[in-house]
Amino acid sequence: MKNVKIEKKILSENEKISIQNSFCFAQNNILCLNMISSPGSGKTTLLARTINELKNKTRIGVIEGDIQTDIDAQRIKETGAPVIQINTEGACHLSAEQISRGIKLLPIDTLDLIIIENVGNLVCPSAFELGESGKVVVLSVAEGDDKPAKYPSIFAKAKAMIINKIDLIEHVDFDIEKAKKDATILNKDLKIFPLSAKTGQGMDQWNKWILEQISNYQKQE
Amino acid sequence: MKNVKIEKKILSENEKISIQNSFCFAQNNILCLNMISSPGSGKTTLLARTINELKNKTRIGVIEGDIQTDIDAQRIKETGAPVIQINTEGACHLSAEQISRGIKLLPIDTLDLIIIENVGNLVCPSAFELGESGKVVVLSVAEGDDKPAKYPSIFAKAKAMIINKIDLIEHVDFDIEKAKKDATILNKDLKIFPLSAKTGQGMDQWNKWILEQISNYQKQE
Repeated sequence: MKNVKIEKKILSENEKISIQNSFCFAQNNILCLNMISSPGSGKTTLLARTINELKNKTRIGVIEGDIQTDIDAQRIKETGAPVIQINTEGACHLSAEQISRGIKLLPIDTLDLIIIENVGNLVCPSAFELGESGKVVVLSVAEGDDKPAKYPSIFAKAKAMIINKIDLIEHVDFDIEKAKKDATILNKDLKIFPLSAKTGQGMDQWNKWILEQISNYQKQE
Repeated sequence: MKNVKIEKKILSENEKISIQNSFCFAQNNILCLNMISSPGSGKTTLLARTINELKNKTRIGVIEGDIQTDIDAQRIKETGAPVIQINTEGACHLSAEQISRGIKLLPIDTLDLIIIENVGNLVCPSAFELGESGKVVVLSVAEGDDKPAKYPSIFAKAKAMIINKIDLIEHVDFDIEKAKKDATILNKDLKIFPLSAKTGQGMDQWNKWILEQISNYQKQE
């Protein structure tokens, strides 16, 4: 009798649904980015500014994840972009199942990009695939330049890293080169964008990268 | 036949060990505080300053929780206080079992207070009791005044709330009264200390509160 080696990856329920989500995004030609950071890094301000600055160039929808409240969805609504608020009611990250329900409530045949704003948490969300094409980690200069070394998982997995609130750089101890270096040790392909979503400084490079990502995704067959 | 109602709380393994930890603290007459916040709120800077300012008044030991690195323990070591670094290797919060091991490595017969600096995460650590007498939540003004409403659990459970980095208040949009009001709705007994661990402004009230907490704890029999 021969031994037959069977290799089969056992997928979690979350992984299965995340794969279904990624099929849904592909069928509708929509790039999806999963934005992850600590609470208060400025994700919502960045999102609102990005939507406003790219209004005539691409069509963006948003899925807002929060433990409680619809404060963030209300802020995105002011830009005119379609937005869905998901409340996790205590859970520390969004799940693929929540995104699956969120997609159904968005006008997906009118969108080029969906940005998911995950629950503010630099740890847990990085472990849960949602079906996105890439993760974007946001770090504000007020949080300190030691965060890539101390919270490596999300920096290792992200496609892009925003260093936000550079308008505060003179008032805090944050060495941009150190943060860049530590993050690049974890992830040599990481694109890094120092910017201020409040003043607009540095937004151009980030906006350009987003448009390139959408264009590259939509070219794939 | 009579119906007999049996009420028995099923304790998790973490809860069981947290109760053992609290017995250990009581036996040794040591107050224990569990400090919780987002990454980068300034917990370590606050701890180092508190230890230095109270050096001649009380004896403080520290348990540092981080996913990776011993950066924070090194910073505490400079104050001369005994410190233990625990690396959770990916886990998003400290467990009672990790604290139980940490206590054994500290010179507990020489201490009045142990401060646990939890993993930077405003969500998960609030759900895991470690045997502490109280939780302290730290929020920096750079994170925004909407955090008590958006992340209610820790603000509802904490004994004290530090509003840190008030030296940045002119440069950010943070309404201290709004943050206080939202936190107090969740927790009417919450003590709130706006301060700057960097400049020292407001430290007196916080230091006074700590000494009172130690004194009240040590008076209990």
